[in-house]
Amino acid sequence: MNREKVQIFDTTLRDGEQVPGCKLDTNQKLVIANRLDEMGVDIIEAGFPVSSPGDFLSVSEISKVVKNAVVCGLTRAVKNDIDVAAQALQYAKRSRIHTGIGTSDSHIFHKLNTTKEDVILRAKAAVAHAKSYVEDVEFYAEDAGRTDNEFLARVCEEVIKSGATVLNIPDTTGYCLPDEYGAKIKYLKENVKGIDNVILSCHCHNDLGMATANSIAGAINGARQIECTINGIGERAGNTALEEVVMVFKQHPYLNLDTNINTRQLNEMSRLVSESMGMIVQPNKAIVGANAFAHSSGIHQDGVIKNRATYEIMDPLEVGVNESSIVLTARSGRAALAYRAKKVGYELTKIQLDVVYIEFLKFADIKKEVVDQDIHQIIEACKINKELVLN
Amino acid sequence: MNREKVQIFDTTLRDGEQVPGCKLDTNQKLVIANRLDEMGVDIIEAGFPVSSPGDFLSVSEISKVVKNAVVCGLTRAVKNDIDVAAQALQYAKRSRIHTGIGTSDSHIFHKLNTTKEDVILRAKAAVAHAKSYVEDVEFYAEDAGRTDNEFLARVCEEVIKSGATVLNIPDTTGYCLPDEYGAKIKYLKENVKGIDNVILSCHCHNDLGMATANSIAGAINGARQIECTINGIGERAGNTALEEVVMVFKQHPYLNLDTNINTRQLNEMSRLVSESMGMIVQPNKAIVGANAFAHSSGIHQDGVIKNRATYEIMDPLEVGVNESSIVLTARSGRAALAYRAKKVGYELTKIQLDVVYIEFLKFADIKKEVVDQDIHQIIEACKINKELVLN
Repeated sequence: MNREKVQIFDTTLRDGEQVPGCKLDTNQKLVIANRLDEMGVDIIEAGFPVSSPGDFLSVSEISKVVKNAVVCGLTRAVKNDIDVAAQALQYAKRSRIHTGIGTSDSHIFHKLNTTKEDVILRAKAAVAHAKSYVEDVEFYAEDAGRTDNEFLARVCEEVIKSGATVLNIPDTTGYCLPDEYGAKIKYLKENVKGIDNVILSCHCHNDLGMATANSIAGAINGARQIECTINGIGERAGNTALEEVVMVFKQHPYLNLDTNINTRQLNEMSRLVSESMGMIVQPNKAIVGANAFAHSSGIHQDGVIKNRATYEIMDPLEVGVNESSIVLTARSGRAALAYRAKKVGYELTKIQLDVVYIEFLKFADIKKEVVDQDIHQIIEACKINKELVLN
Repeated sequence: MNREKVQIFDTTLRDGEQVPGCKLDTNQKLVIANRLDEMGVDIIEAGFPVSSPGDFLSVSEISKVVKNAVVCGLTRAVKNDIDVAAQALQYAKRSRIHTGIGTSDSHIFHKLNTTKEDVILRAKAAVAHAKSYVEDVEFYAEDAGRTDNEFLARVCEEVIKSGATVLNIPDTTGYCLPDEYGAKIKYLKENVKGIDNVILSCHCHNDLGMATANSIAGAINGARQIECTINGIGERAGNTALEEVVMVFKQHPYLNLDTNINTRQLNEMSRLVSESMGMIVQPNKAIVGANAFAHSSGIHQDGVIKNRATYEIMDPLEVGVNESSIVLTARSGRAALAYRAKKVGYELTKIQLDVVYIEFLKFADIKKEVVDQDIHQIIEACKINKELVLN
C-alpha cells in the first residue's frame, strides 16, 4: 500500500545556521545543499537573503546548483525582503518564497506594537507580493504555538485567499506539548476554508525537548510538511531533528506516512553538517550519536547477541551505520566477553570463560573501555598464571 | 493550589553510567549522589550491585552518605542479585530494591527462552524475595513498551500481590509514540487490581527522540514517578533527560503536576555530570546546552531586547543560567548591534547605527562571531574613515 508522503523541508542552512559561532561560507553551503538534494529532501531553505550580502550570495548560488528540491528563501512580511529574496532565487529550477509575521499577542503587542487587523493586512500584502514573483508561497504565522486558535484560523484563511500554498504553524518558542500542537493542527484542518488545497507545515523548536514528538503529532493530525534540520541544530535548543522524524515514520508504518529521504545517507549527512559547522553531536543523540547503536551493559549485550531485535528497533544499516557495536565495560556480561574473545581468536569453554571473566572484571573496574588488545592480554595473562589452559 | 507531585527517580549512576567510555570511580559517584540529593531527587538509583565489585562498593558507599533520597539498587529477577543488592544497600536510611524481568514476546521467547507463565512465577518470586529485605520494592517489566497490554496488566497485578510498591513500565527500546505510551499507562490504571495503592513509573529511552514526550504522556495518564538521567545520558541514545521533564511541569502549570527539584541547580548539575563522565553536552541540548538561551538571529534578538517573553518561555535564572546571551553574527540586526555597542560604550543615533551596521555586516560575513573588541574596532574604523562622527 502506498503510504502518504510528508514533505521534508530542511532548514539547516537557514534556521540551523542561526547558531552562535557556526557561520558557514558559501562553498560549504553548496556542498551541504547538494547532499541534501541527493538525500531526497523536498525543500531546501537556503537562507534569509536580505539579512546579509553573504546570505544573498549563498541563496543565489544554491539556486543554481540544486537539481530536484525546491529552493526556498526566508523573508519578513516586508516588501524589500521579498524583492531581494525573489532576486536571490531567480536561477532556481523550482523556487519558493517563505514570508510571514508574528501572530501571538506577545508578538503583536510587544514586538510589532500593532493591532491584529494590521497583522492580517501585512500578512496578505506580503503573500500577494511574493505571489507576483513565484507560484509557491509559504506563509509562517510566527509564534503560532502561543497564538489562540481562532485568530490563527482567521489569519490562515486570509493568506490562503491571497495565494499562499503552504501554511507554516511554528511553535517558535518550543512551548507546546504534543497533544496541544496536534490539536492546533486539527483545529485548522477543521475550521479554515480552503485548507485542503494547501499544505500545513510543522516547524517546532526543542526548548523543552519535544520538537520531534510535536512534529509527529502535527503530521498525525493532518500536516504534510515538517521543517527540520540535520542534528536538530538551530537557534537556542534547536529545531526538530530531520533524522528523528524520518525514522519515526519508517519505524511506525501503521501511521501510513512516509518521506522521500534515503535514510542510508543520514549518518554521513550528520557528520558533514557537524564537521562543517564545528557543532558537536553528543554521543547520546538519537539516530546519529556515536553511541546510538552501542550496547555496553551485560544484559543488553547478551540480548543483542542472541537476537538484534531484543534491544534494537532499527537496523543500524538503515541509517548508514555499519554495525551495532558491543563495547566491553565493567557492565558487560559473559556473553559479550565470549563474543569478543571469539572475534579476537579465542574459543572459550564455559569453564575457561568463568576464569577469564573474573580477570576481565578486575581490569574493567579500572579501565573504562576494554578493547581487543586488552582481551588478548587478559587471556594471555591467565595462561601465564596457569589459571587457564587453552588448546 | 497544591499540585500533585511526580517523584523524580534519577538513574544517572546506573542506566546513565551504562555508557561506553564513561565509567565513574566511587568518589566521583559520591560527589554526584550528594548533589542529586541536595537538588531534591526523590530516588537515586546508585548502581547494579551484582554486576561488578566496583559497582557494589559504589552502591554501598552512596547508601552511607545520602541524607534524604531513597537509595535504590538494580537486580535481575535472580535470587543472588537480590541478596547482593540488599547487602550493598544495608546502610541506607531509606532503601529500595529494583528487580524485574522481560515481559515482551521478544524478551520471553528470544532472550529468556521460556514461557509467559514462567516469567510471572519468576517475577513474583523476585519481588517476594526482595520484600524479605526491604519494604520498598520496585518491579520493572522490561520492554513493556512492546508488551501487549493484557499480559502486562496480568504481570502487574501479580507482582502487586507479592508486595511491589512501584511498577516501572519501561519503553526499553525507545519505540513508543507519546499517544501509545500514555494509553498503556491509562490501560494499567484502569485494568489492574490494586493499582491505586502503588506508583506507576515511566522509564523511557530516546532512540527516536521522544523520551521526554513519552514520560510526560505517562504522567498525564496517571504515572507518578519518572526515571531519568542528567543530560539524558544512558545506553544507546540515552534516557529521558531529568532537566527536560522537570521544566515541562514547571512551564505547564495547568497539568497540575510538580516535582521536588530545585531547578536553579540544573545547569551546574549538568556540568558536573558532563565533566565527571567526559560526556559532552551538545550546544543545542534543551535546557542545559550552551546555546539553550543564546539568541543570534536579528529578528529574535530584536524581540528579546524589547521583551524577553517574545522568544523565551523560561527565565534562564530558573535553571541556574545567569542571563540570555545576545551573540552577534551576520544574522544579527540593528537592535542587537545598538544594544551591544551601548554596553561597549557607544550610544549610536539611528543614522550612526546605519553606517556602523553596514561595516558590521561586512565584518560578520567573514568572522563567525563578533565580540565586544570587534565592535570597538569597527566603530573606531568608521570614525577614521570619516564615515561616522561621534560626540
